[in-house]
Amino acid sequence: MDEFGLIGQYFASASCAQGGDGIALGIGDDCALLELPAAEQMAVSTDTLVNGVHFPENADPALLAMRGLAVSVSDLAAMGATPVGFTLALTLPMAEPAWLAAFASGLERMAQQCSIRLIGGDTTRGPLSLTFTVFGRVPRGQALTRCGARVGDLVCVGGALGDAAGALPLVLGTRQAAPEIAEPLRARYWSPQPQLTLGQVLRGKASAALDVSDGLLADCGHIAAASGVKLCVEQARLPLSQALRALLGDADARTCALGGGDDYLLAFTLPAEHLQPLCAAGWPVHVVGRVEAGEGVELLDEQGQRLMPPTRGYQHFGSRGD
Amino acid sequence: MDEFGLIGQYFASASCAQGGDGIALGIGDDCALLELPAAEQMAVSTDTLVNGVHFPENADPALLAMRGLAVSVSDLAAMGATPVGFTLALTLPMAEPAWLAAFASGLERMAQQCSIRLIGGDTTRGPLSLTFTVFGRVPRGQALTRCGARVGDLVCVGGALGDAAGALPLVLGTRQAAPEIAEPLRARYWSPQPQLTLGQVLRGKASAALDVSDGLLADCGHIAAASGVKLCVEQARLPLSQALRALLGDADARTCALGGGDDYLLAFTLPAEHLQPLCAAGWPVHVVGRVEAGEGVELLDEQGQRLMPPTRGYQHFGSRGD
Repeated sequence: MDEFGLIGQYFASASCAQGGDGIALGIGDDCALLELPAAEQMAVSTDTLVNGVHFPENADPALLAMRGLAVSVSDLAAMGATPVGFTLALTLPMAEPAWLAAFASGLERMAQQCSIRLIGGDTTRGPLSLTFTVFGRVPRGQALTRCGARVGDLVCVGGALGDAAGALPLVLGTRQAAPEIAEPLRARYWSPQPQLTLGQVLRGKASAALDVSDGLLADCGHIAAASGVKLCVEQARLPLSQALRALLGDADARTCALGGGDDYLLAFTLPAEHLQPLCAAGWPVHVVGRVEAGEGVELLDEQGQRLMPPTRGYQHFGSRGD
Repeated sequence: MDEFGLIGQYFASASCAQGGDGIALGIGDDCALLELPAAEQMAVSTDTLVNGVHFPENADPALLAMRGLAVSVSDLAAMGATPVGFTLALTLPMAEPAWLAAFASGLERMAQQCSIRLIGGDTTRGPLSLTFTVFGRVPRGQALTRCGARVGDLVCVGGALGDAAGALPLVLGTRQAAPEIAEPLRARYWSPQPQLTLGQVLRGKASAALDVSDGLLADCGHIAAASGVKLCVEQARLPLSQALRALLGDADARTCALGGGDDYLLAFTLPAEHLQPLCAAGWPVHVVGRVEAGEGVELLDEQGQRLMPPTRGYQHFGSRGD
């Protein structure tokens, strides 16, 4: 076994993370084995992050691991699924112990936060990239898909948008800000918190859902296309964080919220009768618009005037293609 | 949506491949959804192939797709699982239509051969690499693992070994041979045939199994370590193809068979009573040795003399670390 064959040792702790109900066989054989209660379905998603494309060169390995896993687990949240396990295909130019130890510690931390267990993977030599495949359980027929939005539903998001996009110049070091502004924004970029419990609560309530990875308008376009409706977003209702507004001012903060990817908060459509009970129970549900007949996405100002023509293919900032 | 977002269109046919029992939701949402009969487990494996490391630069895209998928599906064969679906994380320097069309056609061909369906993936910009994650079904408790080999079992392989390693100089163009020699060897490299039906037949019979990816001796070492036994391999019993012997002569052909990875045939341990019925039914079961008490792997000559000391960590030729 060469140095790459030994890398698995670094990940022993992530493979013992809490959770793991439904893992019959973990790391070490040709395949892992998962079990699934009869009334449930297995949700599966794959995401790749490439050095210099999806994260800055020389990224902190612990933060990189946290972000990579969170980005993928967020897809489970978007389906209303409960995390079970994940595989990691890690490609590295060299096997450097300090880098690997830091990466593994970040991976373990996010795995614990999300109650998900490393069940297998592959480590190969090559240009740095990470591919996570995540597995979650969801009661049969209750997964939140993109195709159920109905005219009259509310368009909602799970929190303040745009922080990750606003943080990018801070992450890249091309802009500075006071710590009370910079720190929370950087954290939103590096360790997004998948809205797993919100996703699970929305089962049987939200008519469509996804996680915001391409930017709100582009992602609303995905729901509109899959559901055969139009989503109208009211610009004035966008929830924005104090930190983002302090960094950029309101206009640029809104631009980040509308077009910036990588927030990994949920966006969903909700029949109006579910709004009050969810808000009363303290869930972070922010109404930003309404579903109408038609197609594409419409952005409206405070007077209800259209700010851009309906579109199905809003060109987003981000470099992610999915 | 940018050019990378459109790549999915090329893969529409692989996502409609036969098979797909148990796929409740395929490509196009945040997650795919898989179902699993109550008495079954889901086998999962991830493999990455990196340009210039696991395949030659400028590889034929159709062959590359076939090999990549076959390598991963072979892990399902090694567990005795029935293929269901796979995800593909494809990283590409650019979205080139001719390359993508050829790649997609190779992918579809191997997907059809293996009765496995593309259920999701991610396409990103970066240095060329492929990560496949494959899913298969196996009756609960019947998966073939590496840890059940018992003293007295036969050590068996599913066919002639070493062809893929022998083919490498032909694949790289550093060696020429007559077509009747070169073609079958190149085919073994580029489109290995996962031994799915053999793996399924071995359920309840083989005591341990894997697919030969690191070379026979190294892989026998994995079974020995997992099972707490010694595997003795008799050099004279190694099945070798006519083409490999014609290309290299017997001695070098044997070296390829013992140390060369990438054959993706099954190696397994079998209680002796199962041998005759399997052979009588026409299954390709070749006895190459026997399980003994001890640890590691022992290679024996025709007189039963040890050709190298028992070892747990035979250093293989290949570049794969798993």
